[in-house]
Amino acid sequence: MLTWNRYGKSSVRLLKVGRAAGPHEIIDLTLSVGLEGAFEPVYAEGDNTSCLTTDAMKNTIYAFARQDPIDHVEAFASRLAGHFGAKPGVTLARIEAVEHPWTRLPVDGRPHPHAFTQAGGEEWTCAVTRGADKTSVEAGVRGLVVLKTADSAFAGFLRDEFTTLPETRDRLLGTSIMAVWQYAPGFTGYGERDVIRRALVETFAAHKSESVQHTLYAMGEAALAACAGIVDITISLPNRHYLLADLTPFGLENPGEVFVATDRPYGLIEARLSRQPSGGRP
Amino acid sequence: MLTWNRYGKSSVRLLKVGRAAGPHEIIDLTLSVGLEGAFEPVYAEGDNTSCLTTDAMKNTIYAFARQDPIDHVEAFASRLAGHFGAKPGVTLARIEAVEHPWTRLPVDGRPHPHAFTQAGGEEWTCAVTRGADKTSVEAGVRGLVVLKTADSAFAGFLRDEFTTLPETRDRLLGTSIMAVWQYAPGFTGYGERDVIRRALVETFAAHKSESVQHTLYAMGEAALAACAGIVDITISLPNRHYLLADLTPFGLENPGEVFVATDRPYGLIEARLSRQPSGGRP
Amino acid sequence: MLTWNRYGKSSVRLLKVGRAAGPHEIIDLTLSVGLEGAFEPVYAEGDNTSCLTTDAMKNTIYAFARQDPIDHVEAFASRLAGHFGAKPGVTLARIEAVEHPWTRLPVDGRPHPHAFTQAGGEEWTCAVTRGADKTSVEAGVRGLVVLKTADSAFAGFLRDEFTTLPETRDRLLGTSIMAVWQYAPGFTGYGERDVIRRALVETFAAHKSESVQHTLYAMGEAALAACAGIVDITISLPNRHYLLADLTPFGLENPGEVFVATDRPYGLIEARLSRQPSGGRP
Amino acid sequence: MLTWNRYGKSSVRLLKVGRAAGPHEIIDLTLSVGLEGAFEPVYAEGDNTSCLTTDAMKNTIYAFARQDPIDHVEAFASRLAGHFGAKPGVTLARIEAVEHPWTRLPVDGRPHPHAFTQAGGEEWTCAVTRGADKTSVEAGVRGLVVLKTADSAFAGFLRDEFTTLPETRDRLLGTSIMAVWQYAPGFTGYGERDVIRRALVETFAAHKSESVQHTLYAMGEAALAACAGIVDITISLPNRHYLLADLTPFGLENPGEVFVATDRPYGLIEARLSRQPSGGRP
Repeated sequence: MLTWNRYGKSSVRLLKVGRAAGPHEIIDLTLSVGLEGAFEPVYAEGDNTSCLTTDAMKNTIYAFARQDPIDHVEAFASRLAGHFGAKPGVTLARIEAVEHPWTRLPVDGRPHPHAFTQAGGEEWTCAVTRGADKTSVEAGVRGLVVLKTADSAFAGFLRDEFTTLPETRDRLLGTSIMAVWQYAPGFTGYGERDVIRRALVETFAAHKSESVQHTLYAMGEAALAACAGIVDITISLPNRHYLLADLTPFGLENPGEVFVATDRPYGLIEARLSRQPSGGRP
Repeated sequence: MLTWNRYGKSSVRLLKVGRAAGPHEIIDLTLSVGLEGAFEPVYAEGDNTSCLTTDAMKNTIYAFARQDPIDHVEAFASRLAGHFGAKPGVTLARIEAVEHPWTRLPVDGRPHPHAFTQAGGEEWTCAVTRGADKTSVEAGVRGLVVLKTADSAFAGFLRDEFTTLPETRDRLLGTSIMAVWQYAPGFTGYGERDVIRRALVETFAAHKSESVQHTLYAMGEAALAACAGIVDITISLPNRHYLLADLTPFGLENPGEVFVATDRPYGLIEARLSRQPSGGRP
Repeated sequence: MLTWNRYGKSSVRLLKVGRAAGPHEIIDLTLSVGLEGAFEPVYAEGDNTSCLTTDAMKNTIYAFARQDPIDHVEAFASRLAGHFGAKPGVTLARIEAVEHPWTRLPVDGRPHPHAFTQAGGEEWTCAVTRGADKTSVEAGVRGLVVLKTADSAFAGFLRDEFTTLPETRDRLLGTSIMAVWQYAPGFTGYGERDVIRRALVETFAAHKSESVQHTLYAMGEAALAACAGIVDITISLPNRHYLLADLTPFGLENPGEVFVATDRPYGLIEARLSRQPSGGRP
Repeated sequence: MLTWNRYGKSSVRLLKVGRAAGPHEIIDLTLSVGLEGAFEPVYAEGDNTSCLTTDAMKNTIYAFARQDPIDHVEAFASRLAGHFGAKPGVTLARIEAVEHPWTRLPVDGRPHPHAFTQAGGEEWTCAVTRGADKTSVEAGVRGLVVLKTADSAFAGFLRDEFTTLPETRDRLLGTSIMAVWQYAPGFTGYGERDVIRRALVETFAAHKSESVQHTLYAMGEAALAACAGIVDITISLPNRHYLLADLTPFGLENPGEVFVATDRPYGLIEARLSRQPSGGRP
């Protein structure tokens, strides 16, 4: 018995160049379409009469991109969700988009009108889900790598028989911020991403941290305070451990200067803060 | 308001060598621990008294690995879930494990007693979730790359204004199988993985495919038929497109012989088959 | 002053299906073309009259693939090198190819005639370099991951003021074999790859290792002994460290059973063995 | 016969925090050590008496990092090369370093004294090779992703029977700059990296490009002109193709606006410009 199904096209790569009067503009997106619906005959009987091809989904994205200004990826994704959500049999259409930000190359100290550079790590995410009776719009950032070398402690924690970690009032705290927030129904101030992003990183920098959890919570509170248009925010912070190198075998002290940067394992701290009580897990 | 939280250790890398009488045995795992619970004071107040360190979680994994035979990773993960689920404040403990399979190196046609090789792509997954009143055990495979060069069609599909794909009765069908199944409560026949895996790949090979969906469904049915101990199976099949190279500019026919292998975009077909009606999305 | 130049097309992805009588055959390749030559006007003056487009290189690969049996990738690459090496201005043409091996899916214990699986890690490499007066053919393997849990020691090494490593007569030895060998001029027994590969892995398994260097040397000797058609072999062995987990804080012994698998840093041991004295570094 | 050998430690991850008066400073490096020399007994006989462990190499890096200011990674790498090059039997020591740049987080418009962010893509490279009679110092950048949407043409090229590419006077030109330059013996003005980097990107932006080769050459000339202390520069530019989406099936024009961003295949253009004639390939 088929109890859930979804199909679509993933990883459609789109670059759009705006060539209106003045400097060029570019937007660089990776898009995915996923459709849920009454498609049992496709699965169970090999009957494709209700099956829109994923190739057509790809074509639709490029054709819509030609006609849409794509001022904000959230609005573009909403238009796509409306199109696909209206197809026969579809009960839920989900558009996921990742924006890869570019900035203008500086030449002689001024931003160039048609040359750009891409830093590479940080991405801006967006997901629009259109069901029978409501549409939700989420946005976020990920790959936003930050590190603080002061104002981070971890002490007073629970100790069991497997606890060997020493307490510390001064450690490095490094992470790659991933955050996703949900906009209130009808809110379309998608430019608020910058405000939320700034609240996250400025709080990370300024916070007197007792733990990753403690800083995550302060970041979430700051984001909710910064933008009234979001109803919740889910933050995920991997704790990228920097281990103090043990130099005592070589007769050297190491007062918080030389660290071994590690990839694995890592702590992973995740939480959602909401304006209202809300059930369920993400 | 904190409406959800989880923390833990991710990507703990463990190799265990069994050196009992006879040939050596090895098991290679990447493990993660995630705990949900009443940890508001950690987040909101920076009070760590209820916070078990993620470093201790890592230590626990290695210590338990010493004492546990790890005959099946599902049983080892269950033991860890029991341990962490009993910690103060924890409402849900989830252990995720990935097993990286090794096989014995053949030497002179015989499996070597202590030399091994690892193919690298396929992984075996497992997740044990222990809540207040029930424990669920999932297992799966991923990265199982397969391709068939016959018995795959895609025709008779819905056409809209953006549909340009030609119909075909003969195409390549390539994918990387990801499947996750849930064991019935109390079932512990974890060795059934091999039976389920074989049902998946043999069905993929033998099926007269009208679409990826059609083959996915047949694979799911076969898996449910092969092992009575599972209650559902969720299968995810990326459609890795092989495009027939257009050689007409060079005066050459190309009767299904030379293909451009592409990475992106790709179709993505996902569904869950269950023995019983079941609500909700995965 | 332009003192060296090369241009070409990289990462051309090709799958060829052989549909002659009997079971289907497939070959999966990633190819690159690089041309060196008298192309100064292209660089210095923006004069493209001598510039064959890299798009045409890609087209050529697919067109040749239609006409060539591709029994051995070395022969196919040689044919491409001959074609591109004869273009005006070209002084050196280099074709690099990576073969991604597939095996037949077993169904009911028998290899299936048109369904295949790809393990994923191991790749077979080939490079043909055609200059003015000679053509060289190299082949190799990479991503061949192996591990031995006995017969590996590391002791008696040089100790300086930064040496803390304890000596051991029993450690794990894990690596990912990369080997490249050069065929003698005129030799075309490209099927010898299997013989060389077997010599490498069987020697790895059987060798009483005093160091990675020691085992590398034995592997190289075995490869040279196994195939008279190769003039040298260069082997690169990363030493993937498995660290014995320290369980003494938990009152547990760990007699070579539980290891922390690490990625970074890693030792890297490389050497070339040749039949004749030979100058220069790879 | 062993005709070449090298061994060492790769991928040593180091973060150093400078905590002197004023704002903190950080430097983030990945380092490798490779030693060539008279180590035949290690390979051929399993005699380790001349073998410095790669573990000691790692220790040495961390200990030297404690004592060295690491104002410039080139100077730090030179000191390491001097140390390892003086070990018994070593004929050539090579230190490779990758610097992962961090910038200060802006808070209230001002750079924060101890909070940092890392963009992620661009890396700065360095290699110091110390042989018996000379030491060479190379430096470079890689992962510097740029794109221009005007002033890029590709026309007038050679056409053969496999050429189908249309000529264009207006295309997108996107690449990821990798450049390596060699400093003149004795030159230690390692801060010139910024000057060279600026010459590369400003030339990329401003150049009227007839081909990737043409722009590469202009970039190389600009770099040599910008810094008298370098003797050559080798530049590698992958041509990341942006294909104009064909929207004619949907009745839409596409005047250089909507592009399909592709990964593979890609053109690859490489060249070295030197002040003096110089033999050999990189």
